[in-house]
Amino acid sequence: MEKVSSHGSINELHERVKKDGMSSLPERFEAQEKTRCNYCKQGLSCQLCSHGPCRITKYADRGVCGIDANGMVMRNLVHLHVFGTAAYSHHAKTAFKTLKAVGEGKGFYEIKNEEMLNNVADTLGVGRQDSVKQTALKVAEFFLNELHRDSDEESKLVEIFAPESRKRIWKDMGIFPGGPLHEILDTETRCMTNIDSDYVSLAKMAFRMAISMAYCSQIPLEIVQDILFGSPTPHETFVDVGIIDKDYVNILPNGHEPFVGAAVIKLAHREDIQQLARDKGAKGIRVVGSIETGQELIQRFPTDDVFVGLTGNWINQEYVMATGAVDLFAVDMNCSVPTLGIFADKYNSTVASVSKLVRIVGVNNNFDYTPENAEEIAGKLITIAIDNFVKRKGKDTLIPQKKQSAIVGFSTESVLKALGGTLTPLLDAVKQGSIKGITALVSCSTLTNGPQDALTVAVAKELIKRDILVLSAGCGNAALQVAGLQSLDAIALAGAGLQSVCKALGVPPALSFGTCTDTGRLANLVTAVAGALGVDVSQLPVAVTAPEFMEQKATIDALFAVAFGLYTHVSPVPAVTGAPDVVKLLTQDIENLTGGKIAIGDDPVQIVNGIEDHIMKKRKALGI
Amino acid sequence: MEKVSSHGSINELHERVKKDGMSSLPERFEAQEKTRCNYCKQGLSCQLCSHGPCRITKYADRGVCGIDANGMVMRNLVHLHVFGTAAYSHHAKTAFKTLKAVGEGKGFYEIKNEEMLNNVADTLGVGRQDSVKQTALKVAEFFLNELHRDSDEESKLVEIFAPESRKRIWKDMGIFPGGPLHEILDTETRCMTNIDSDYVSLAKMAFRMAISMAYCSQIPLEIVQDILFGSPTPHETFVDVGIIDKDYVNILPNGHEPFVGAAVIKLAHREDIQQLARDKGAKGIRVVGSIETGQELIQRFPTDDVFVGLTGNWINQEYVMATGAVDLFAVDMNCSVPTLGIFADKYNSTVASVSKLVRIVGVNNNFDYTPENAEEIAGKLITIAIDNFVKRKGKDTLIPQKKQSAIVGFSTESVLKALGGTLTPLLDAVKQGSIKGITALVSCSTLTNGPQDALTVAVAKELIKRDILVLSAGCGNAALQVAGLQSLDAIALAGAGLQSVCKALGVPPALSFGTCTDTGRLANLVTAVAGALGVDVSQLPVAVTAPEFMEQKATIDALFAVAFGLYTHVSPVPAVTGAPDVVKLLTQDIENLTGGKIAIGDDPVQIVNGIEDHIMKKRKALGI
Repeated sequence: MEKVSSHGSINELHERVKKDGMSSLPERFEAQEKTRCNYCKQGLSCQLCSHGPCRITKYADRGVCGIDANGMVMRNLVHLHVFGTAAYSHHAKTAFKTLKAVGEGKGFYEIKNEEMLNNVADTLGVGRQDSVKQTALKVAEFFLNELHRDSDEESKLVEIFAPESRKRIWKDMGIFPGGPLHEILDTETRCMTNIDSDYVSLAKMAFRMAISMAYCSQIPLEIVQDILFGSPTPHETFVDVGIIDKDYVNILPNGHEPFVGAAVIKLAHREDIQQLARDKGAKGIRVVGSIETGQELIQRFPTDDVFVGLTGNWINQEYVMATGAVDLFAVDMNCSVPTLGIFADKYNSTVASVSKLVRIVGVNNNFDYTPENAEEIAGKLITIAIDNFVKRKGKDTLIPQKKQSAIVGFSTESVLKALGGTLTPLLDAVKQGSIKGITALVSCSTLTNGPQDALTVAVAKELIKRDILVLSAGCGNAALQVAGLQSLDAIALAGAGLQSVCKALGVPPALSFGTCTDTGRLANLVTAVAGALGVDVSQLPVAVTAPEFMEQKATIDALFAVAFGLYTHVSPVPAVTGAPDVVKLLTQDIENLTGGKIAIGDDPVQIVNGIEDHIMKKRKALGI
Repeated sequence: MEKVSSHGSINELHERVKKDGMSSLPERFEAQEKTRCNYCKQGLSCQLCSHGPCRITKYADRGVCGIDANGMVMRNLVHLHVFGTAAYSHHAKTAFKTLKAVGEGKGFYEIKNEEMLNNVADTLGVGRQDSVKQTALKVAEFFLNELHRDSDEESKLVEIFAPESRKRIWKDMGIFPGGPLHEILDTETRCMTNIDSDYVSLAKMAFRMAISMAYCSQIPLEIVQDILFGSPTPHETFVDVGIIDKDYVNILPNGHEPFVGAAVIKLAHREDIQQLARDKGAKGIRVVGSIETGQELIQRFPTDDVFVGLTGNWINQEYVMATGAVDLFAVDMNCSVPTLGIFADKYNSTVASVSKLVRIVGVNNNFDYTPENAEEIAGKLITIAIDNFVKRKGKDTLIPQKKQSAIVGFSTESVLKALGGTLTPLLDAVKQGSIKGITALVSCSTLTNGPQDALTVAVAKELIKRDILVLSAGCGNAALQVAGLQSLDAIALAGAGLQSVCKALGVPPALSFGTCTDTGRLANLVTAVAGALGVDVSQLPVAVTAPEFMEQKATIDALFAVAFGLYTHVSPVPAVTGAPDVVKLLTQDIENLTGGKIAIGDDPVQIVNGIEDHIMKKRKALGI
């Protein structure tokens, strides 16, 4: 691999890592390339039972139990979906419990967005209570209850939040779900040896679980985080590794949950706390956002001298450590690489887990977050970070001086506000063709398609060039931020129509919608657009792309998008090619049922050709 | 493979299947043997993310993400545990909902064991209500609530049912769990890419989940089934394929749940229903138990001219179909092979799913059980079976005339009753050495160690020969039943000490404790023994063996046994050998924490040497 990243800063740090004799992602990737298993790549390997491992080969068209290629491939895929659903639902549970604690008068947080809380209480039918705290408690309990709803019942949240036309389709298909805990239980049980061996049935249940995940986990969890930390509003921040200053005590919240990071930001704004660091020879304490936790934070918290922005996405982790200027890497629920302990040792840093789920070999600081102990944890992290600073002060650092401006903080509410309280200006731009259509770019980052973020950035550029507005979320969002596509300068890269709209509104051609968790936020916007036009989601000139999906949250997001009725591009190709019927189901047949489908491909022009064709077909059908 | 089974009937039917050009388990096993993956076999393969598939090889000591061999192997193993926990918990949920429906006056079932219901109500602290139904409702709601208890709280059921000395150990280790739904959520999330990469932490969480599964799913689910269908009491039944009579309409409930089977037995005892079959030229309708559903039924329902016994364990399925005399194979939640549709077509049978989780290609009869529709489903099944009989009447059948007597229906309660209301006679026999110790044989059945049940039967024979009492459960229980080890004739195979006890009590040397689900029942008996002696479970001359584990329920059972403090033999060797540290943790280090450990090996004499050594060591420590 010639270069690890499309971002210069990361390539520069990778050189440092190599020079230091350390192995990082691309070295490990290349080592694996030597012995890739072609059966696993196609989904044709099963390791479930003691009769295995089995493969579908020219000698064997079934596993020992009798499962065929379709069943094996789909079952393997559904396994991955269960992981993603679990992770989102765990995050949701943590958010709901945090709101509940606030409602009970416990913990470090407060209700920042009372208006949203009240609106949600009305929408859910729990009503506004005598006090804000009581309302918070009722809302939290409602969401917690729905998380637990039996799969033999219908989720109230799907009933409340999903478009009518979608609900009808899902009921007809038998995939209108209950709550995610029971959908996980059902799906996980089905995926055992000798239970559900029918790929069509397995696929349906995966779609069902995806709908449950979106409406019972993703959407309410972002609502709750907006209530607790404020809704995103558009503002400028800074990204890339150059935001780190070695003369400060640098704390990097990393993962997907904003809870501990928000507590550290709050505490670090206290003068007496800053003084503790200055007493030890630092210029002060800074919070530097890392990957999706950073993305959660930059959406909602203003950039200032204490909270300075976001380094980038998950592939950055080893390289950001290699700056030698990270005093504390605080990892929460998801996406912290197993080598952090090794890199911390090498580059004079400290790692702490702030989630009971995260344990890493060589990391002994484990401060498991609960809503009640956030302040205590934040204090401990600051102490450890200052101690680390004292030890690493004066030691070698390498901080590539790359720093990029980005406008972040879009949401359905802030888009509406920017448009003057109505979607009409956006819809008019679409109707008139200045904007041909909208594509949600929700992606991870991977080396499988080439350097970090290269394909994601290329796809986004191609989309905006063709007057397709990009709404981005996930690690792919950070890709666009670091690449400069969320600055006003990027307007020049858009087609003439999109340029005119962006100039009029003063927004970049790729709008930051947050993390992968904000997929629910995107779904809400699409629902609002479909509602305003009086059509079903599947009729909209809208598509989804994940140019660099990496893990299991991405795959369940993609399934939801297909169930939601959307054309959904994913790359790299998932491990399904061993079963042509499964491929046909996901890329063709499903369109007749949900209106959505999976598209594959790893060439940016061809990817966008597919998206544009779909958008133009939908425009034509709508007569615009 | 020279012969598929240690049972003559199955070998005879396998010959028929081969002659008919059909491929069944051993053919598929042999085809897979040609291309086994050595990485998968050792647990050194990961297919979670788009950077994979990865392997630990001489070129690569880590996956692309950075996970090492220990983390990869343990994570793969924990995946399997989640499946097993999910399946048991789903079964538990179904049982609890069935009891709840009875409490609400709905459905086809009644409270058969009011004494047990009242005792449980007392134990749980919900108290006896004004009516039996109200008590049933309260008990069901208690169990359902505990299924949902958050993992940040402590399970009330573990608190109520587990021995004090165990609870202390589990609290010290941080593995005292909440409810299984949340333990599954936590564990599944941990097992995603880049979350928990520490094999020790992963192992601890798997033990924790196992404890939750045992006390919140297995134990209460068997309690509830005892309340609904009566507690097992020792009685004679018949096993093996020869119990099928081609002149009857034969309905085979297959799977793990007794609900629909019990409804069919009830309905089939009605004269008007039997007459329907006789009107079509059959001698009547018979219910023939198949695998674990059959095992659930033979424990509780008397053998008569309508319910005739059990064919055997899961490997039998394709061969039982090949008799040509199965009119309806009704499959519930677990362990129905994917080829049933093909075998039904070939051998003039019909398959129906009676669980929403089970779907099989080519099977179009799907009657998803709910507590409210049991009678309706049972009626439909009988109608379909009679229709099938009409079509297959006169066609070729092959029913090997093998029929074996077995005494079944042991439980803590029935053992106590047999001993005159106290464990003292059993404890005295152990103290005096007539019984050296007790081994719970809880196993599946697999071809990996040779013919079906060969190793299981050999281990059991070796155990009883050495005066070690066998309590058996699961598919391995059926192995012993078909092999004659649960008849009084088998007493002659026991050592002199065990012989004397068995003769005095009139019981066989291997006592049938039911299905794999009854592992909880075994745990209760062990708890009672430890309590009576005033010692911890780990101090008892007791062991566990799974000579032919096959799937994911077995692996979570084994983990529970280790957490419970027991020496636990499993074979075949699970896919852990790629990580010596993991092997050491499970087979050595864990003993210092829980008192239990995993033992491996596939030679019956060596297996029993290990068990006997352990038992003698424990006897010595107890001074007996």
